Amino acid sequence: MVKQDRAIRTRHAILTAAAKVFEERGYQAATISEILAVAGVTKGALYFHFPSKEHLAEGVLHEQDQRLPIPERPCTVQRLVDTVVLHAYHLQTDPMVRASVRLSLDQQAQGLDRSGPFLRWSEVGTELLEKAQVQGELLSHVNPAETADVVVGAFAGVQAMSQALCNYQDLPRRVSCLLQHLLPSVVVPSVLATVDITEHRGAAVQTELEALHAASLRVPVS
Amino acid sequence: MVKQDRAIRTRHAILTAAAKVFEERGYQAATISEILAVAGVTKGALYFHFPSKEHLAEGVLHEQDQRLPIPERPCTVQRLVDTVVLHAYHLQTDPMVRASVRLSLDQQAQGLDRSGPFLRWSEVGTELLEKAQVQGELLSHVNPAETADVVVGAFAGVQAMSQALCNYQDLPRRVSCLLQHLLPSVVVPSVLATVDITEHRGAAVQTELEALHAASLRVPVS
Repeated sequence: MVKQDRAIRTRHAILTAAAKVFEERGYQAATISEILAVAGVTKGALYFHFPSKEHLAEGVLHEQDQRLPIPERPCTVQRLVDTVVLHAYHLQTDPMVRASVRLSLDQQAQGLDRSGPFLRWSEVGTELLEKAQVQGELLSHVNPAETADVVVGAFAGVQAMSQALCNYQDLPRRVSCLLQHLLPSVVVPSVLATVDITEHRGAAVQTELEALHAASLRVPVS
Repeated sequence: MVKQDRAIRTRHAILTAAAKVFEERGYQAATISEILAVAGVTKGALYFHFPSKEHLAEGVLHEQDQRLPIPERPCTVQRLVDTVVLHAYHLQTDPMVRASVRLSLDQQAQGLDRSGPFLRWSEVGTELLEKAQVQGELLSHVNPAETADVVVGAFAGVQAMSQALCNYQDLPRRVSCLLQHLLPSVVVPSVLATVDITEHRGAAVQTELEALHAASLRVPVS
């Protein structure tokens, strides 16, 4: 158990170092030696966890995957919205998520398959939209996979624009504005009227998840 | 006149070389010496046109600016749509536009102000939407500047996703799908019913502009 803990800590130290170096230098220019120097681990430990630069990048790319899924909600469209705004919140607050998103948009990263995060986010979105459809929350013409792709693609660009213009300071407002433009083509009006897409939603969802997590730690394992 | 022609050709050769090097190496890793070697011009000529790497990048970033504006149309929303789908068409067909868009999303480009293309496209979109608003084509709640920002940001991400997944092969379909999701929140239904946002629109607009350009060359200057 202690040994496993240490392996997790080492892996995390390596990924944090890789994220930092990829972010500063770009995938193409980054070298394993630099990552090694920043991580402060042995060469053996690094190659044990990640046999190549590509594996390191894949590891960082996975760090934007949804960690704590949004709990079930009566309204599944709200759950989809919460997934989107929480990701925006993490972009503002978590350097690892930021590095991961930047890497997936690094068009100079030759030989690196950057499709993973796009495909995984699309899958998360498609699943939620299919559920919302069954619950009657969507307009009848909606194709869940197509709409999920639009949401994922549009979000990627809105975050890039916010980053280029003001280093993410206006990201919650821009994401709220994007949802205001997309949802009326997707969601039935009665659901639209109840969904919270204001710019404070991301921080509120994060607080909710932290409270749920703290509560789960207090429950004795039976 | 001949001298000016040569200057234009030299400037173009330098920008083409800069685009190629930035695309291959990223802004951060690219050097003026490499660009010089690819361009095949003298050091003096290069520094005359572009005194620094940042100036070279700014030059490439300007290459995605709208070159031939879409002509006036009875429906200004169609003109906006045509501006968007033509840009998508150029992304598929023009390496310089592609290099420019990649550079504006290069988050490793430290010290380079990448806000220019976002702001200029937003301005183009805002102007068209303000005109459409005056013509009664927009829903009454629409804020032209906000909607323009959503369109520009969302487009940037949809193109990045198409590039990462299939090197732009499905870009026209994705852009058409994005417009299907955005326009119903922006445009009055009677206008929506007449606007062509199919995936073949970009190539059609390009053909139209080429014909207009060819015709203008045949008209004697009075």
